[in-house]
Amino acid sequence: MEKGEATAIDIMERKGKAPLLGARAASFKRSAAIFDLILRISAATAALAATITMGTTEQTLPFFTQFFQFQASYEDLPTFTFFVIAMSIATGYLVLSVPFSIACVARPLIVGPRLLLIFCDTLTVTLATSAAASSAAIVYLAHDGNSASNWLPICQQYGDFCQRMSGAVVAGFISVALLVVMVLLSALALRKH
Amino acid sequence: MEKGEATAIDIMERKGKAPLLGARAASFKRSAAIFDLILRISAATAALAATITMGTTEQTLPFFTQFFQFQASYEDLPTFTFFVIAMSIATGYLVLSVPFSIACVARPLIVGPRLLLIFCDTLTVTLATSAAASSAAIVYLAHDGNSASNWLPICQQYGDFCQRMSGAVVAGFISVALLVVMVLLSALALRKH
Repeated sequence: MEKGEATAIDIMERKGKAPLLGARAASFKRSAAIFDLILRISAATAALAATITMGTTEQTLPFFTQFFQFQASYEDLPTFTFFVIAMSIATGYLVLSVPFSIACVARPLIVGPRLLLIFCDTLTVTLATSAAASSAAIVYLAHDGNSASNWLPICQQYGDFCQRMSGAVVAGFISVALLVVMVLLSALALRKH
Repeated sequence: MEKGEATAIDIMERKGKAPLLGARAASFKRSAAIFDLILRISAATAALAATITMGTTEQTLPFFTQFFQFQASYEDLPTFTFFVIAMSIATGYLVLSVPFSIACVARPLIVGPRLLLIFCDTLTVTLATSAAASSAAIVYLAHDGNSASNWLPICQQYGDFCQRMSGAVVAGFISVALLVVMVLLSALALRKH
């Protein structure tokens, strides 16, 4: 909070004028902070689910040739590796940012942590969106293939693998949506002084 | 601006206390708004360049069989079609939002347009990022292919096409970066009352 404002509020309160307005702003900010905390934990859970689903899925086909076995894991496609890395960074950030969100609940008029959160949240939105979108493009290709470039769908062979990859991408997009709501909420809370 | 604050500032000014501080905040907000306007025009230009590059590139190979000619355009890959649509929406939004940015320059203490801009900017960041990231995944695949899923690179045949697609993706990411800076700047400007 700026010094000038503090003085202004002091004046207001000393004069007994409109202390209610300040209290209302604080209560709005506290509700926003509580809602932010809930969203943050949900987003962290979704991001964690996406990471784990993508990272642990492997499928080995029940037949093999003399030379190798047919096996699919996320490491076969660089885009999925990027997804796992980006989503684990997002999960880590979301978990580490919980204390700052709690600080906003405890002291709703504080500005520093809220500004820090909106900054890092915006960057995390970009990271998580690019991970989810690029993996979605590859999952779509795995399902439908592309005749123009002669890329055949692989989901007929690796059905289970594809289904779990799609689940991971959906979880990734859920965490993106929650992050976007968090940014909008923080912007709204920053305004109400 | 809220009513309570207006009263507070009135009191401050009537008492002749710290009118400088208000002036400093207004000047910071005006600089931020001017910078926002410049970034907005640059981002619109980058998004327009990305749309046009992606949308107009076609390559026809100099040989053909009896049945068809080898030709590549963005419509062959659904991801590139999404890129063109999303980037033209982003361009349209950025152009239409210029008047609101000008309103923030003219009246730096105004809150409504700034809040509207940060909301829409955040959504546009998500849209533009998903377009750029999904196309990047496909361009990467076109360059390098993927041996695990037997998708062969197509850039050996369609070299020019690939190069222009990569350019479009880079332009897309530049507009994403500018949009992110705009969101951060708006958040900073919203705080300083």
